[in-house]
Amino acid sequence: MAGPIEFWFSIGSTYTYLSVMRLDAFALEHAVDFTWRPFNVRTVTQQMNNRPFVGKPVKAAYMWRDIERRAAWRNLPVRVPAPYPLENGELANRVAIVADQQGWLKLYVTEAYRRWMVDGQMAGSEPNLSGSIIACGRDPESVVSKAKDAATGERLAQSTEEALKRGLFGAPTFVVDGEVFWGDDRLEDAVRWLSHEDVRT
Amino acid sequence: MAGPIEFWFSIGSTYTYLSVMRLDAFALEHAVDFTWRPFNVRTVTQQMNNRPFVGKPVKAAYMWRDIERRAAWRNLPVRVPAPYPLENGELANRVAIVADQQGWLKLYVTEAYRRWMVDGQMAGSEPNLSGSIIACGRDPESVVSKAKDAATGERLAQSTEEALKRGLFGAPTFVVDGEVFWGDDRLEDAVRWLSHEDVRT
Repeated sequence: MAGPIEFWFSIGSTYTYLSVMRLDAFALEHAVDFTWRPFNVRTVTQQMNNRPFVGKPVKAAYMWRDIERRAAWRNLPVRVPAPYPLENGELANRVAIVADQQGWLKLYVTEAYRRWMVDGQMAGSEPNLSGSIIACGRDPESVVSKAKDAATGERLAQSTEEALKRGLFGAPTFVVDGEVFWGDDRLEDAVRWLSHEDVRT
Repeated sequence: MAGPIEFWFSIGSTYTYLSVMRLDAFALEHAVDFTWRPFNVRTVTQQMNNRPFVGKPVKAAYMWRDIERRAAWRNLPVRVPAPYPLENGELANRVAIVADQQGWLKLYVTEAYRRWMVDGQMAGSEPNLSGSIIACGRDPESVVSKAKDAATGERLAQSTEEALKRGLFGAPTFVVDGEVFWGDDRLEDAVRWLSHEDVRT
């Protein structure tokens, strides 16, 4: 296996759905390993003056249509527009931090996105939150309690700081040897970077 | 030939360089016809509250690196960062309107971009402006004079209005049967749309 490629994601990013749903199959097909890194993209976009869609209705409408087309080409279900922006994105990502510590991160993120993008349930809010945790075989009350404690908040903040240090400004982002690739549509470029030396100028 | 696909571009958009330099070869390879449509993207991004890079240094640095990598993979010369944003983008695009009327649009746009992205000469300003017009076998003084007249300004404004009506919010953008594809990295999607009926939901 080559890699790992860091997969920086944040529940709340819409295009991240396209990556979450293809990454495991992609990893097998290309024999590449990915490290899943949750962070809080809203903190980043606010610091960067880079809110991608809020207050931009034409671009937001395009984003949903673009996701709809690309999902259809991948035979991936999606119902657009999904509820956006998230009201509790911070909590959704704190649960991801807990899930990462306990070894059920990918399943949680996949469940949260499926409920959000297919069932129309806002990620980080009920019933998505409890439903996604239960689908991972965990107890919602104890997980959410742990997600809300200060230590989890600190871990998410540290992860977000690390994202900023790497030069991230949005999600999803792939990082290979310090090289940044932003967007689901740059996943192939990230893998190409991993295996070729030709443009390391 | 299939198509045409409308290729909406604006001199001043950085990523448009990648499209301008590959579109003719791409058209031949895929047997697709493109209609080149100049417009003023700055008018559009201002109306849309969507300035992509100004005031966003991290994202701007990423944009140059992304263009550098993708250009290298295509064996396309580029020297980044090129001077940005343009001081006379309006004039650069007015000249494109004149060139379009007189039948030398593609050559002008290609020359202006090459001087900007390879030689470091800001498009729309000297020496890029005169150099690009001369390279097309035209007289800079008379072309710039015509570019600055009210009728040319009106044509560019009409073209920009038409872009807004189609739902454009940036450049480059490809439009197929009213379907909008934004970015050089969506060119393949636009062609796919042209030839497939599978996701016309």
